[in-house]
Amino acid sequence: MIPIQNFYPDDLAWCYGCGRKNEHGHHFQTVWEGDETVTRYTPKPYHIAIPGYVYGGLLASLVDCHSTGSAALAAYRAAGRDPADGGPPFRFVTASLHVDYLKPTPLGPELVARGRIKEIKGRKVVVETTVSVNGEVCVRGEVVAVQMPEHMVPSP
Amino acid sequence: MIPIQNFYPDDLAWCYGCGRKNEHGHHFQTVWEGDETVTRYTPKPYHIAIPGYVYGGLLASLVDCHSTGSAALAAYRAAGRDPADGGPPFRFVTASLHVDYLKPTPLGPELVARGRIKEIKGRKVVVETTVSVNGEVCVRGEVVAVQMPEHMVPSP
Repeated sequence: MIPIQNFYPDDLAWCYGCGRKNEHGHHFQTVWEGDETVTRYTPKPYHIAIPGYVYGGLLASLVDCHSTGSAALAAYRAAGRDPADGGPPFRFVTASLHVDYLKPTPLGPELVARGRIKEIKGRKVVVETTVSVNGEVCVRGEVVAVQMPEHMVPSP
Repeated sequence: MIPIQNFYPDDLAWCYGCGRKNEHGHHFQTVWEGDETVTRYTPKPYHIAIPGYVYGGLLASLVDCHSTGSAALAAYRAAGRDPADGGPPFRFVTASLHVDYLKPTPLGPELVARGRIKEIKGRKVVVETTVSVNGEVCVRGEVVAVQMPEHMVPSP
């Protein structure tokens, strides 16, 4: 399955977290798995808070981009559209981000962010996300994502 | 004034956001200015969400480390101690992080994170933080920081 970030218009694909065109960034990639959205990412050895544990700012970044990507996926699905249909693209930005650090997140294994669409209404999508390592939930987040204004989104 | 992060014990100074020993990190540095805490940081050109605007994950990282640093500053002040006194160090971690993105944050000028200690009780400190560019508040955040367990904090 092609990640939603691959369908972001070139001008909106520079995000440090998830833009395919940002050579310095994390390149988070988000797909559907059934009714959940999933982003997998293996942190770099230097993405630490204290030795052995993942930096909270990276986890917040993962929750953030995973959620805006999930919001775009949800908007296409709600509209009965396919991201590849050539129509006007959905692209969301973050209005608010909340992250609860439930336990220290061990560094090394892949992080799995898993999202659930909690609400979709007008231009707003609320996404609940967990981040797990080896199946154990370490982080719980919620993002309110809003659709970018049309004048900022280039036509396809 | 010496930033609080300079007093973190070596073993706890590896944070990607604010650890002086992490060569890949942001090296955020937090000081008192009167009753407020301040962290100043100029983003790199690639720290973008969309071209011209700062990446939300970087802003969340700034709020996060600024707040744990502020919590440590507040703990010393509340205890009537100086971080340079050679006693057991205060070092906080983040229990929860909330960030409201009030408006897009322009990339280029210095970001100024400014914190207010909202609550300090036992091992918990709540910090309210704004991030401004050219005097305009773009981001508002709140962090619940908790003191690291003693067994994780090396003696001085």
